[in-house]
Amino acid sequence: MARNTQVAADHNAPPITQILAKFVATHPSKGWSDAVDHEAHRTFMNWLGCAVGAAHHEAADAALASVTMLQPAAQASVLGRSERVDMASAALVNGITSHTFDFDDTHLKTIIHPAGPVASAVLAMAEHLGNSGREVIDALVIGIDVSCRVGNAMYPDHYDRGWHITGSTGTLGAAAACARLLKLDVAQTAMALGIAASQPIGMREQFGTMTKPFHPGGAARAGLMSALLAKSGFTASPKALEAPRGMMQTISTKNDWNEITYELGERFEISFNSYKPFACGIVIHPSIDACAQLRDIFAREGVALEQVERIELKVHSLVLELTGNKEPADGLQAKFSVYHGCAAGLTFGRAAEDEFSDQVVNRADMVALRRKVVATVDDSIDEASVDVTAVLNNGRRVHVFVEHAIGSLQNPMTDANLEAKFHGLSDAVLGAAKTAELVKACWAIGDAADVRTLTALARP
Amino acid sequence: MARNTQVAADHNAPPITQILAKFVATHPSKGWSDAVDHEAHRTFMNWLGCAVGAAHHEAADAALASVTMLQPAAQASVLGRSERVDMASAALVNGITSHTFDFDDTHLKTIIHPAGPVASAVLAMAEHLGNSGREVIDALVIGIDVSCRVGNAMYPDHYDRGWHITGSTGTLGAAAACARLLKLDVAQTAMALGIAASQPIGMREQFGTMTKPFHPGGAARAGLMSALLAKSGFTASPKALEAPRGMMQTISTKNDWNEITYELGERFEISFNSYKPFACGIVIHPSIDACAQLRDIFAREGVALEQVERIELKVHSLVLELTGNKEPADGLQAKFSVYHGCAAGLTFGRAAEDEFSDQVVNRADMVALRRKVVATVDDSIDEASVDVTAVLNNGRRVHVFVEHAIGSLQNPMTDANLEAKFHGLSDAVLGAAKTAELVKACWAIGDAADVRTLTALARP
Repeated sequence: MARNTQVAADHNAPPITQILAKFVATHPSKGWSDAVDHEAHRTFMNWLGCAVGAAHHEAADAALASVTMLQPAAQASVLGRSERVDMASAALVNGITSHTFDFDDTHLKTIIHPAGPVASAVLAMAEHLGNSGREVIDALVIGIDVSCRVGNAMYPDHYDRGWHITGSTGTLGAAAACARLLKLDVAQTAMALGIAASQPIGMREQFGTMTKPFHPGGAARAGLMSALLAKSGFTASPKALEAPRGMMQTISTKNDWNEITYELGERFEISFNSYKPFACGIVIHPSIDACAQLRDIFAREGVALEQVERIELKVHSLVLELTGNKEPADGLQAKFSVYHGCAAGLTFGRAAEDEFSDQVVNRADMVALRRKVVATVDDSIDEASVDVTAVLNNGRRVHVFVEHAIGSLQNPMTDANLEAKFHGLSDAVLGAAKTAELVKACWAIGDAADVRTLTALARP
Repeated sequence: MARNTQVAADHNAPPITQILAKFVATHPSKGWSDAVDHEAHRTFMNWLGCAVGAAHHEAADAALASVTMLQPAAQASVLGRSERVDMASAALVNGITSHTFDFDDTHLKTIIHPAGPVASAVLAMAEHLGNSGREVIDALVIGIDVSCRVGNAMYPDHYDRGWHITGSTGTLGAAAACARLLKLDVAQTAMALGIAASQPIGMREQFGTMTKPFHPGGAARAGLMSALLAKSGFTASPKALEAPRGMMQTISTKNDWNEITYELGERFEISFNSYKPFACGIVIHPSIDACAQLRDIFAREGVALEQVERIELKVHSLVLELTGNKEPADGLQAKFSVYHGCAAGLTFGRAAEDEFSDQVVNRADMVALRRKVVATVDDSIDEASVDVTAVLNNGRRVHVFVEHAIGSLQNPMTDANLEAKFHGLSDAVLGAAKTAELVKACWAIGDAADVRTLTALARP
């Protein structure tokens, strides 16, 4: 009965679990630059807006209905709703809503959406325990550093294999953040990370279903519980992340340990976080940006969309791999359709949540416009770029090349852009006045004595 | 930016998720032989005894302390204790306790411990909802069929890669069982399986820590919640198990789909369940059995253990891979030490929980005896067998060959053996009289109008 292990085990990994535990437990409060701290506030605000915005989505209703069957205690807020549930269930539901619109933050190097798992766990726990905003921001920076560094080490092999890297690394980030919030010592923090290491969540096959946003929610919940278990004395392997049959070697053939240890505590991955102007997968953003630019050109020059015969897209292979659905049947599917993204850009000049409604997706003009888009893979095009040519029925060709779409690190959303995005998500849920207060509370969260002043504003 | 996918995707898998969903939702109640139904009762009783026996283990205390922080509603029993918690938390804690002693059932073809995830989820949910015992047994047979068939398809590659297959397949089994209990239709059941498919739990690196028994507990909890989510309308990919980036292809390079579809509904994997006479990993059992036989020979012939110079073991490679710890520091580690197993067999003729106490493990005579054991891998020895030779200080060699250890399918525990084992676990927790009542209730569970008559007996 011969057995083959497919990949040679690495028995010489550095003690990653212990190294990360020490960082999580002992790094000084606000032990980073003002720029990093400001980015943490931007990350927090963008995450919160997304969660509030999707508070009444049917995925939120279904998730809340299921946790309600557990008759949960009223410990923490379901953001954007009046219900309160136990902190673990709040982490789950808020993690789901924050990713439902696919509008949350992106760590571009790994395509991780880092805030969903980490912020959802931290805020729910902090609300129940009455932590300060400073403690929340500290936990957020540190938790995101853990999940993104683990992601850096495993990407792209781990992702290529089929894992939704947001959920699989998110459990660790949430556990780290909650361990920090609970002030666990180094040994307990290592146990929290170790327990979390047995619970990577998320397969890419789920893209386009409610289980995609379940991944950050489930990761938030699992990470929070891992920290509570560790606080209660539950044990795990002290080498749970790096051992030959630990988490990372089991779920990834590539593990660059240096990505975890290099400049740990000096460079913070949250610095490289980005925020989406468009409510869909990041790989479509250059195409939407380019089509919105075409729309501006057409408006200036009096070209009607009816005159467009064909839109030729040259894209990176990942664009069609992830978003190659030419005939999306509803809004959720349309988020994985570069064709719909182009149609929205050409028609509206934007692609926020409204442009991904079932109604807009099924409009006859949108269907027709999608069918005019011809996308081809071009190996010379970077993942961040797109080359678009509109061919008009008079033979004229209008060309737009986007190197870095708006929302990228090279062309980031401004603070004002983020506020406008927040209002766009939250006004209909909480009202414009309360939303304005909540925006202010987000910018000031680092100084809040008790985060419950903020969470109270996130309920209608 | 070239990307390599390590393993060629199988785009032609049969619709496993739908096939299993149809089986789970529509297979008739008690749609199997009396022998299968009796095996289900044996499985249930063995699982319950293990859970009750470990009710006050420190792992149970820690797990219960952590879920208590959520202020859970009193929906379901923590078996062997007076506390009641919400059904999801009960599934978690009972799943942990049922595997804490490593004394639960084993599906030998895959080394899956199938009852932990499935029974823990089903009984907790049934207790809250007031289901009949028949519904529980039906769900148990069907849930175990799902997890073990998925395990058959992926084993051994999946296990070799590092996954603790009990947890990784257990989430599916628990989801299937709870979907059945909730009477979900085929489409909803497919969603429950799909949501569960994003949550495989458990790495082998955790063996020897509390996170090992966390795996079936976490799987029970995740499966139960997946069924509740599906009931509430939450969606997942209808191909979540078999798609190229679904669960099975993501976590295993081997996927023999035929193992799932062949004789589905006719052959039941619970038929191949086995129960341990010894409270440790199944791969050590032949060695313990052989050493207990040596002890009988020594007793008959007046040989003292002091006269033993060396115990020579020829074992399958997996024995040393899984249980090669020569110097275990405590009881938990000793469960992964074939050396300690031999010492216990030679000294006591048995290896129940008491023989794995920290105190016994650290006894000087046990340490000395472990050091006399020399184990070597022999490719001619099957995983189920062992070849043991005791070398005495007068040069005499005493040889025992065990082809199939007691507790194997070929040499199974009798019903009386199982009752005795149950008493050994439960008497100290619930008292002998209540334990006797509980044993009776287990044999009669299939006829119970409401499982709460049984769960009431499982509280002190």
